[in-house]
Amino acid sequence: QGILERLDAGEIVIGDGGFVFALEKRGYVKAGPWTPEATVEQPEAVRQLHREFLRAGSNVLQTFTFYASEDKLENRGNYVAEKISCQKVNEAACDIAREVANEGDALVAGGVSQTPSYLSCKDKTEVKAVFRKQLEVFMKKNVDFLIAEYFEHVEEAVWAVEVLKESGKPVAATMCIGPEGDMHGVSPGQCAVQLVKAGASIVGVNCHFDPETSLETVKLMKEGLQAAKLKAHLMSQPLAFHTPDCGKQGFIDLPEFPFALEPRIVTRWDIQKYARKAYDLGIRFIGGCCGFEPYHIRAIAEELAPERGFLPEASEKHGSWGDNLSMHTKPWVRARARKEYWENLKPASGRPYCPSMSKPDGWGVTKGAKELMQQKEATTERQLKELFQKQKI
Amino acid sequence: QGILERLDAGEIVIGDGGFVFALEKRGYVKAGPWTPEATVEQPEAVRQLHREFLRAGSNVLQTFTFYASEDKLENRGNYVAEKISCQKVNEAACDIAREVANEGDALVAGGVSQTPSYLSCKDKTEVKAVFRKQLEVFMKKNVDFLIAEYFEHVEEAVWAVEVLKESGKPVAATMCIGPEGDMHGVSPGQCAVQLVKAGASIVGVNCHFDPETSLETVKLMKEGLQAAKLKAHLMSQPLAFHTPDCGKQGFIDLPEFPFALEPRIVTRWDIQKYARKAYDLGIRFIGGCCGFEPYHIRAIAEELAPERGFLPEASEKHGSWGDNLSMHTKPWVRARARKEYWENLKPASGRPYCPSMSKPDGWGVTKGAKELMQQKEATTERQLKELFQKQKI
Amino acid sequence: QGILERLDAGEIVIGDGGFVFALEKRGYVKAGPWTPEATVEQPEAVRQLHREFLRAGSNVLQTFTFYASEDKLENRGNYVAEKISCQKVNEAACDIAREVANEGDALVAGGVSQTPSYLSCKDKTEVKAVFRKQLEVFMKKNVDFLIAEYFEHVEEAVWAVEVLKESGKPVAATMCIGPEGDMHGVSPGQCAVQLVKAGASIVGVNCHFDPETSLETVKLMKEGLQAAKLKAHLMSQPLAFHTPDCGKQGFIDLPEFPFALEPRIVTRWDIQKYARKAYDLGIRFIGGCCGFEPYHIRAIAEELAPERGFLPEASEKHGSWGDNLSMHTKPWVRARARKEYWENLKPASGRPYCPSMSKPDGWGVTKGAKELMQQKEATTERQLKELFQKQKI
Amino acid sequence: QGILERLDAGEIVIGDGGFVFALEKRGYVKAGPWTPEATVEQPEAVRQLHREFLRAGSNVLQTFTFYASEDKLENRGNYVAEKISCQKVNEAACDIAREVANEGDALVAGGVSQTPSYLSCKDKTEVKAVFRKQLEVFMKKNVDFLIAEYFEHVEEAVWAVEVLKESGKPVAATMCIGPEGDMHGVSPGQCAVQLVKAGASIVGVNCHFDPETSLETVKLMKEGLQAAKLKAHLMSQPLAFHTPDCGKQGFIDLPEFPFALEPRIVTRWDIQKYARKAYDLGIRFIGGCCGFEPYHIRAIAEELAPERGFLPEASEKHGSWGDNLSMHTKPWVRARARKEYWENLKPASGRPYCPSMSKPDGWGVTKGAKELMQQKEATTERQLKELFQKQKI
Repeated sequence: QGILERLDAGEIVIGDGGFVFALEKRGYVKAGPWTPEATVEQPEAVRQLHREFLRAGSNVLQTFTFYASEDKLENRGNYVAEKISCQKVNEAACDIAREVANEGDALVAGGVSQTPSYLSCKDKTEVKAVFRKQLEVFMKKNVDFLIAEYFEHVEEAVWAVEVLKESGKPVAATMCIGPEGDMHGVSPGQCAVQLVKAGASIVGVNCHFDPETSLETVKLMKEGLQAAKLKAHLMSQPLAFHTPDCGKQGFIDLPEFPFALEPRIVTRWDIQKYARKAYDLGIRFIGGCCGFEPYHIRAIAEELAPERGFLPEASEKHGSWGDNLSMHTKPWVRARARKEYWENLKPASGRPYCPSMSKPDGWGVTKGAKELMQQKEATTERQLKELFQKQKI
Repeated sequence: QGILERLDAGEIVIGDGGFVFALEKRGYVKAGPWTPEATVEQPEAVRQLHREFLRAGSNVLQTFTFYASEDKLENRGNYVAEKISCQKVNEAACDIAREVANEGDALVAGGVSQTPSYLSCKDKTEVKAVFRKQLEVFMKKNVDFLIAEYFEHVEEAVWAVEVLKESGKPVAATMCIGPEGDMHGVSPGQCAVQLVKAGASIVGVNCHFDPETSLETVKLMKEGLQAAKLKAHLMSQPLAFHTPDCGKQGFIDLPEFPFALEPRIVTRWDIQKYARKAYDLGIRFIGGCCGFEPYHIRAIAEELAPERGFLPEASEKHGSWGDNLSMHTKPWVRARARKEYWENLKPASGRPYCPSMSKPDGWGVTKGAKELMQQKEATTERQLKELFQKQKI
Repeated sequence: QGILERLDAGEIVIGDGGFVFALEKRGYVKAGPWTPEATVEQPEAVRQLHREFLRAGSNVLQTFTFYASEDKLENRGNYVAEKISCQKVNEAACDIAREVANEGDALVAGGVSQTPSYLSCKDKTEVKAVFRKQLEVFMKKNVDFLIAEYFEHVEEAVWAVEVLKESGKPVAATMCIGPEGDMHGVSPGQCAVQLVKAGASIVGVNCHFDPETSLETVKLMKEGLQAAKLKAHLMSQPLAFHTPDCGKQGFIDLPEFPFALEPRIVTRWDIQKYARKAYDLGIRFIGGCCGFEPYHIRAIAEELAPERGFLPEASEKHGSWGDNLSMHTKPWVRARARKEYWENLKPASGRPYCPSMSKPDGWGVTKGAKELMQQKEATTERQLKELFQKQKI
Repeated sequence: QGILERLDAGEIVIGDGGFVFALEKRGYVKAGPWTPEATVEQPEAVRQLHREFLRAGSNVLQTFTFYASEDKLENRGNYVAEKISCQKVNEAACDIAREVANEGDALVAGGVSQTPSYLSCKDKTEVKAVFRKQLEVFMKKNVDFLIAEYFEHVEEAVWAVEVLKESGKPVAATMCIGPEGDMHGVSPGQCAVQLVKAGASIVGVNCHFDPETSLETVKLMKEGLQAAKLKAHLMSQPLAFHTPDCGKQGFIDLPEFPFALEPRIVTRWDIQKYARKAYDLGIRFIGGCCGFEPYHIRAIAEELAPERGFLPEASEKHGSWGDNLSMHTKPWVRARARKEYWENLKPASGRPYCPSMSKPDGWGVTKGAKELMQQKEATTERQLKELFQKQKI
C-alpha cells in the first residue's frame, strides 16, 4: 500500500530519524558540507542505519540524498573523495534504501532539499533543473513517493513540489521553519497553503526546531489550511534537541551548533510526549530529523502502540517505560521500572558551569548582524544573498 | 606487535568505546540485563560498531562479551531469544572482533567481568570456574590479550586475573571504582597493588565515573604502585557522561540512569581535554566505556595525533577543532571554525526546568537505603548480599 | 512644582521602591496580611526606609498605606496589635512621608489599592466608600497627588480613579498586570484607555512582574492610548525579581513566593538596563515595587544622571559601574572596577540543585486549579469569587 | 550577665548580621573601602540597623567599627567626608550600639579586624599599636567584651587577641577562613589552638564562606582544640550567600563579588538549617556576617526557639515556617503555609542564561595569577605583599 492509501485509511505512518547527525557521529559524514557520499564510499554504514530505523518502527525510509543535488556536491566537491558523481550518490542511496525496505514493510521516499542555486539567486528555470536531475534518478529507481524537505524559503519549496509533481507520484513537502514562518516572513499557514496548491498531498515541518516548537508550527499550518478550506495530511520531523532559545533560523543560530549540542539531546520519554501530542494534533506522519537516533523512533512506535496495535521489532530489546529495569542487579535501580518515575524526572546536566539557555547568534537575531547588514549596504534580503554569493560575508 | 610490545615501546594505545549503551540506542541490547546475545542474533550490528571504532582510531577491539558469563546469561535467560548458549555468544563475539580487527591494525582483547556468582557469595573455586569457561573460548579463538574489567570488588578482580594469567597471554585489569575505592573500601592504590601482584601488566579503571573522576582514580592507583615499588602500564576507560554528583557506586546511583542521561553526554571537546590529561598523567592505554560513541574515540585520536604522528581514518570526515565549518552556508557558523570557540564554549542545556546536579540514590548514599538495611537486619555487606541473593531486597 | 508640572516639562520623575517586602525583611511587616500598621507601631522604621529612598533619588514618596483600607485592616484585624484604627494608620503614614519629603525635594503621593470588598463582590457604591474613607485622610493631610495602584481588575481601578478625581488633585493609576491583561481579560491597551477616560493623568503598571515584562505591558498601554488618540504620562514600578516563568497572576503563582525569592533578586546592573529601556520607551515616572531596595532606586538615578544632570545623595557612597572597587585591597577585585565587567557578567546562583525556571501554580495556569474549579462547580469567575468569599477554597 | 557567664551556663547566644553589605544597599557604606564613617555621618541609619537585629533576636550588638583602624581610614581617607577622625568614628559606634543594646537584653562587643599595616609588612609592634588605639576607645566606652574578627592570617589575629587581652575583658576571635586554613596555610585546627593559647575564650569563623562551608571549618577548629586538649566556646558568623564554588580566599574570588551576589542570597529556610546544624555541632554563639539581614537572624532565633524557650520580638511579624500565609488572599498561596513546603523547595533563579557555578578568580586559584606572580618575580607571599605595598599589582 502506498503512502496516501495508508494515510487516507487513518493509519499512523512513522518516519525515520536523522542521517547526517547520526552518521557524523559514526564517522561517515562531514559536518559543514553534510553531503551523503557515504552511499558510495561506505554503503554498509548507511545500510545499517536504515536497518536500525526499520527495526525501530519506521514505515518510510528516506533515500540518503540530503544535499545531494549536483550544485551542492560541486560546491563541496573538494570534500568528496575521488569526485564521486552526483548520479552515483543518488542511485546508490535509492538502492540501499530499497534493499532495507524490502526486509520489512517500509516505503522508500526520494528526497530533494534546498539548493545553493536558489540561495545564489539563480532563476526558477535553473533551480528547477537541479531538482529535475535528482528526480530522474528517483524515477529510474522507482521510489514509492517523493519528499521536498528542508526548505527555508517557501518559494523554492513550491518550485520543488512543482517539479516532483511531474512524476505523477505522491508528494510530501516540509519546511525547516518555526512559528515565525519562512525567511521571507511568509507565515506557516500561508506556506502550507502554497505547498498544497502546488500539489503536495502531505505538508509539515522538519528540522531546525525542537519537537515542542515544531508542533506549534504544524498547528499554524493546519489552521492556515482550514482557513483556506484546503485538505492535506500533516507531517512532522523535528530535531531531537531542546531548542527553546533559538531564533528564526532555528538551531543553526545556537552557539552549540553543531558540535556541542549533547546537553540538549531529548530523552526517549520526551519523544513519547511528542508522539502523543503530535497524534492529538491530528498529525499522522510522525518522524524525526537531526539528532533522532533509532531509539527515538522506537519511542514514537511504543507510545502509539495502543493505537497501532503492535510494537516494533526493536521493542524486543526494550521494556515499556523502563520495565526491563526490574531485572537490574541494584535494588534502587529496579525501583525505576515504572512510568511515573521516567515521566516526571527532570534530568540534571551534571554541568554546573553551564546555563540553561544560550544567546543565539545569526542574522535573524543579533544586533551585530544588523550592523553588518548596514555596513554592507545590504538593506534587502536579496542584496544579502548577493553579498553572500560574492563571498563577501 | 602485541599489546605489551606497543606499550613498552612507549606507544599510545587507543581503546574502543561502550558497546552496551551504543547498541541499546541502536536497538540490539536490552537495558537491565545488558547481555550481548546480539553477537549471535544480529552480528552485522555488532560488526558495524566495531568497524566504526576501528575507523575512529581504536587499536584494541574488545570482544563483545560483557556479562556473557554462563551464570549471568542463565540468570537473564528469559531475555535471551531461543536460549542461545553461552559458548556460542562468546565464540561469535571473538569471530566478529577478529574479522574487523583484520581490516586494520587492531588487537583483539577477550574480556571477562564481574559475575552473579560472586555477588551471591559463591566461593573462589566456583567463581573461578565461571571465568575459566569464558577463557576457554578466548583460547580457542586465540585472542591477542585479555582484560578483566568492570569489577566493583577487588577480591573478585584478583580471582579473574589469576584465571586469565593461566593462559600465558598478557592481562589487563580495570575496576569500575572511583577515588573512594572498591565496595569493601579498598583504596584505588591498594586495588592496583593487588591486581599487579596477581599478574596484571596493565591496570586502571573503566565505567561508572566521568573522565575527570576516573583520572583522579587512576592517579591514586599510580601513586599506590609507586609507593609499593611496582611497575605496570596504566589504562582508563571512563564514561562519556558528566557525573560530578554521583556517590561511591557511580552513575548507577544517579536518578537519570540509564534512560535520561542525555544532558550529561560529553562533547568531543570534553574528550580532547580528557585525552590530553590522561596522556599527561602517564596513561598510555586510553579508551572509553558507556556513552563513548565512535566520534568520542576519534577525539582521543585527534588530540593525540601530534604525539602519534597520524590521524585515524574517520578524520577524513572531521576537521580538527571544527575547521570543516569553514564550508558552512551561514557566515556565523563559519565563524565557529576555530579551536578557541569550541574549547571555551559552555554548552547550554535548553532545559530551563532542570538542575545542574541531581540527588543520587543507592545504598552508598541514601538514608532510605540505610534504613532498609537496618530493617532488614543486614548489618554487614555479606548479609546484604545474602538478602540480595534471596531476592528479598 | 507638582507632579504634572514636572512631567509636562519633560522631567524624569523617580519613584520609590517596595515597602512591604523591605519592611518584612527588617521585621516590621507580616507576609500574608502585608498590612502597614508599622506606621503607628514603629514609625522610625518606616521613616528610615523613606529616607533611604529619598537619598537614593526618589522624587515621590508614597504614603505607606498599602492594604490600609478599612475592610482590609478589619479582615486582617487579629494581626494588628491593639486594634489600631484604620484612620490612625493612614494619618501616620502621611505624616511620616511628609516629614521625610521635606528633608529633600520630594512629593508625597497618597495611595489606594485593591480591596477585599471588590473581591467579595460588593457593589460599586460600597467599594467606592472604602476608597473615599482613605481619601479623606489624604485630603486632611494634603498629599501632593494620588495613586491608585495594585489593581488586578480594571473595573475596580476605574472606580478608584473616579473617587480620587473628586479631590481635584492629579491622579496616577497603575495595575499589577502583565501583557495578557487584567483578570477579566481586558488588554493592557484597553485598561489604559479606561483609566485615562476615568481621569488618570498618569498610567502604567506596578508589581507582579519583572522589569522586562512590565515594560512590555506599558508598551501595550502606550499603543492602546495612541490608537484611541488619548494622551497620558507613562509610569512603571515593577518587581525587583526575575519572573520570566510566571503566569497571568504574576509572581504570586511562583512556588518561591514570598519566602524563597532570593535567587531571583535583580542586581543594580539589571536595574540600570531597565531604567534605560523605560526611558527609551518614553516612560518618565520610573520606580519600583516589591523587592526594590534603596540601591535599586539609586541605580535608576545613576543610569539617568546624564539626562537629569545630577546624581542622588546616596551616590556619594557608590561609584558608577563599580569604579569604587579601584580602592579594594585585592588586585583581582580592583580589576572589576569597570562597566564592561558588570554589564556582561551572568551571575551564578551557587545552587547546583536548583533549576532556572519553576513550574508556577495558581488558578491561571494549573490543571489542578481547573479541576478544583470544576469540582466546585464554579464555572465563572464571579462564582469563583463567591466561593472565595465563603472561604470555601 | 556577661558573654562568658551566658555561654558557660549553656545558653545559646545569637550574634548580629552584616553591617557593611546591608548599609551599602541602604546607601550609607561604600563598597571597596567599606569603612564605617556612617556612625558619625548618619547615625540614625546605623542605629536603625542595630535595632532591627535586636528585634530579630541578637544578644550581641557589635560596634560598627569594621575597618575603622586608623591606618585603614587614612588609607581610604579621600572617601571619608570631611576627614572624620578615627576616634570619633569608633566612639560614635560604641555609643550607638550601647543605646540600642539598652533597649533590650543585648551585650555590646567592640571589634577589631585585619589592618593594612599587617598586609604592608609592618612589624608586630606597629600592628599592635593600631589595635591598641581602637581598644582605648572600647575601654573608655566600656564595651562588654571584645572580638578580633575578619583575619586572614592567624599571626595577625594572635597579635590582636594579645592586645585585646590587655583589657581584662573576655575576648572572642574569628577568622575569615575556610577548611583549607589561613593564607599562610595554617590549618583551622592549628589556628584555633593558637588563638586560644593567645587568650581567646571563644573561637570560630566569620565571613568569606557560606554557612555550610563555615561549619566545616569550625568543625576542624573543634577537632584541633580537642586534639590539643584545649577548651573554648565555638562561634560562627558565615555569609548569607551560597558559595560552594569559591577558592581559598572565599567569596572575594567569585566574579559576582560584590555587586552581583543577589542570586546567591540564602533564604530564611537555609538559615534555619544552618542554625540547627551549628547547634548540633556544639556551637553556642551563632550569628552571621555579610549578607545577613535582620530576617536571617530572626530565622536563627526561630529555629532555636524550642531550645531557648522564647521567640524574638520580630517574630510578631512572622509565622513559623510560613504559617502566616494562611491569611493570604490566594488559595494556592495559603497552601504554602507549612514547613514541608518551604523545607523542600528548590528555588528557581528565573535566570535562564546563568550557570549554577562560576569560575572564581584570585591569586589562590587562577593560572593567570600564578603567571603574574612569576612575571613579577614574587615567589613568596612576603614578596607578593611587598609588590602590593608598592602598588605594583
